[in-house]
Amino acid sequence: MKHLIKKIVIIGGRAAGPAAAAKASRENPDAEITMIEAGKYISTGTCEIPYLLSSEVKSPEELVFGTPESFLSHYNTKVLLETKVVSINRRLRTLQVEKGDVKYSLEYDRLVLATGSKHRIDPLFSPAFKNVFYVKTIEEVEHLLLNSSRAGKTWCVVGASFAGIEFAESLNKAGNKVILLDREELPGKGFAPEIRQLIKETLTKNGVEFIHTPLDPRIIIDGDKISKIKLDGFLKEIDNVIVATGVVPNSELARLAGLEIGANGGIRVDNKMKTSDPYIFAAGDCTEIKERITGRHIFLPQATIARDGGHVAGANAAGGNEFMYPVIKNVALRVCGSFATRTGVCESTLKSLNIPYKTVSAKTDALVKVMPGTHKVFGKLLIASDGKIMGAGFFGGTEVSGYADIIALAIKSGIKIQDLKNNCFNYTPTLSPFKNIIEILAHKAAK
Amino acid sequence: MKHLIKKIVIIGGRAAGPAAAAKASRENPDAEITMIEAGKYISTGTCEIPYLLSSEVKSPEELVFGTPESFLSHYNTKVLLETKVVSINRRLRTLQVEKGDVKYSLEYDRLVLATGSKHRIDPLFSPAFKNVFYVKTIEEVEHLLLNSSRAGKTWCVVGASFAGIEFAESLNKAGNKVILLDREELPGKGFAPEIRQLIKETLTKNGVEFIHTPLDPRIIIDGDKISKIKLDGFLKEIDNVIVATGVVPNSELARLAGLEIGANGGIRVDNKMKTSDPYIFAAGDCTEIKERITGRHIFLPQATIARDGGHVAGANAAGGNEFMYPVIKNVALRVCGSFATRTGVCESTLKSLNIPYKTVSAKTDALVKVMPGTHKVFGKLLIASDGKIMGAGFFGGTEVSGYADIIALAIKSGIKIQDLKNNCFNYTPTLSPFKNIIEILAHKAAK
Repeated sequence: MKHLIKKIVIIGGRAAGPAAAAKASRENPDAEITMIEAGKYISTGTCEIPYLLSSEVKSPEELVFGTPESFLSHYNTKVLLETKVVSINRRLRTLQVEKGDVKYSLEYDRLVLATGSKHRIDPLFSPAFKNVFYVKTIEEVEHLLLNSSRAGKTWCVVGASFAGIEFAESLNKAGNKVILLDREELPGKGFAPEIRQLIKETLTKNGVEFIHTPLDPRIIIDGDKISKIKLDGFLKEIDNVIVATGVVPNSELARLAGLEIGANGGIRVDNKMKTSDPYIFAAGDCTEIKERITGRHIFLPQATIARDGGHVAGANAAGGNEFMYPVIKNVALRVCGSFATRTGVCESTLKSLNIPYKTVSAKTDALVKVMPGTHKVFGKLLIASDGKIMGAGFFGGTEVSGYADIIALAIKSGIKIQDLKNNCFNYTPTLSPFKNIIEILAHKAAK
Repeated sequence: MKHLIKKIVIIGGRAAGPAAAAKASRENPDAEITMIEAGKYISTGTCEIPYLLSSEVKSPEELVFGTPESFLSHYNTKVLLETKVVSINRRLRTLQVEKGDVKYSLEYDRLVLATGSKHRIDPLFSPAFKNVFYVKTIEEVEHLLLNSSRAGKTWCVVGASFAGIEFAESLNKAGNKVILLDREELPGKGFAPEIRQLIKETLTKNGVEFIHTPLDPRIIIDGDKISKIKLDGFLKEIDNVIVATGVVPNSELARLAGLEIGANGGIRVDNKMKTSDPYIFAAGDCTEIKERITGRHIFLPQATIARDGGHVAGANAAGGNEFMYPVIKNVALRVCGSFATRTGVCESTLKSLNIPYKTVSAKTDALVKVMPGTHKVFGKLLIASDGKIMGAGFFGGTEVSGYADIIALAIKSGIKIQDLKNNCFNYTPTLSPFKNIIEILAHKAAK
């Protein structure tokens, strides 16, 4: 079949798109591959963007990992920058394309949609204000860096989920006063309630002011800027606002082309990342992906999943036969020097699906108490009636990454809580505890 | 049966003994439990002792976790300190006991041997020299602390295995000149050769002088001290020597009583920690323990295994029915701010047992390259012909603890290398890499 695939077009050049191009060129070296990107850059880092605000990452350039030249030479891929796809004609297998005023059409034998996600716009904090920033792309963070100061200012961050917390702690680290708003009572939606409490305490202790705003706060406008926000009955002067109220799949193009769209707004794909049109594949934030524990298709905008999905979509678009395995959500978050993780499903999901579960939680020391540098670690597991692990959360130091990954492997391998005893985990005073939180949780659950 | 067990005696009060006492008192609250300890302390930390030399642990007292009073009140256990068991009369079920000049006999219904291990003495570096220290117990480290200075001195550490490296790096951290000797060409016997090289490089870079001494070096004696050692053709002045050439099971008492002893000198026990005498159990460094991958009985002097074995021995001595699961070796070591781990079996074991294996190794970044604080991580896996993991080694930062534990869980659960792909490991720039070393090793092995 490969010889029938002469033209592969990929729409989107940030995460899933470049992965698809790389894999397609390896799978089918004779195909003509074109990658179309609406912005100025391809192969960019997104997760690293908050750390430009703390200057841990020095310049946006560092987050651009590819160029049209490198993609042509390494992946036999022609890159079209600042080029927009207006529509897909599935019958003719052509795309209507625009670059500035120039419009033309492009043929494809196989198409990969990697159109990513877009901001959920908060109407109160409109991006029309000059000091309100929505930041997800390199272009957007360049705009922020050019049009704001990040030293000794007051920043308001709207939305205390993942990105909001990252922006807040980075601006705090850089020496700004930070006010973090959320409609929820605690930051970190999706984390275990106990961990959300620990996130709030850690933010507060480090000087980030978290404010629960169940209703829209009142804003005071001064010209083309928001100058003050009324919070807790007081008017607070602010210099800038970052809105991080989430993203939604950017699936408009697919929807207009009549492709099947899932309940969460993402393009529906099968386990080969094929859409409802056998000539069109999709990957990354524009899709919905099968979750391993519940079997549901969920919207999970994560770089690693975009990469893996992109690889499968690219390989299969080029005539290969690869599979995307159901995913396990497994995320980590720095909170002012501490770390929180979340693996598998959360309690609200289990409740909404009427899946019975029990919980076990514990707090212990990261190292034996006599060693300097030890600190507390909190852990919580969600366990199915047959003992299988369905979810976990940890809060502590860097060790939580390993704990989260152990649980991810346990979920993937169907390891039950009773099998998580007697693990022969390593112990050395300078690195790991005499009995780690996973052993403690497993023993506690057995009682 | 429990009501027939009235007197439980435990010989040894450091690691396995206290674990046995705790478990026995829970299992059989009516039994009269006696724990006999030859030294001054019970329930002590051993792994933490090197960090007294770097002052990370402030005082030996911090490593004494129990007292006769606390054991009487918490575990219904009478503790006899500075008391020696001279012999066991298995027919009469009595012990011949000495405290100072007082000799008496003690009856038992069930006996637990937790006599630990003892130093392998290097005849060249005799403990008779006033500046030569053998350090494994609190009493020994107290003696060292009283009789040496650990600031600006020259220390020679003999033996560059686990404890030797820990002593060397702690003395180095405290500001001493450290010369580390070993008969092997590289430090860290049992670690992968690549990791041994990295250990050597790291020690050297940090100022620890590692010297390969295939033959006994010449020593110069001044009165009751060793004053110089001839190394690399030069006479080096030294202030003190720590000998860390390993330990052997302290199984003399069991041997004299006619209990079965294994090929490595440890007391032979079954999976209930029962010796060849059904009234006698044993646990900790004085025993040999079943290793999961090869099924062999090995000598594995580790605190976590002493604890687990002690729990099982104590429970069963008290009339319980608990099992000790075959162990997976999983150890970690700090080397001047870096960490090395070793999990499962090593290549020389596989070679000596004629077990076929293949290896895969890789080097990657601990974090995405743009993040500050990233560093290299090396990893190597030993894989059976059916894909099962048999061994692993990592060298890098604190993240290697999690990697080692993931592999330990994989070994325990029979997870094959091909199942170690698509793990959904967490990624966040401040904590974990975009693709971690385990994913990389699994993909490399698949090729």
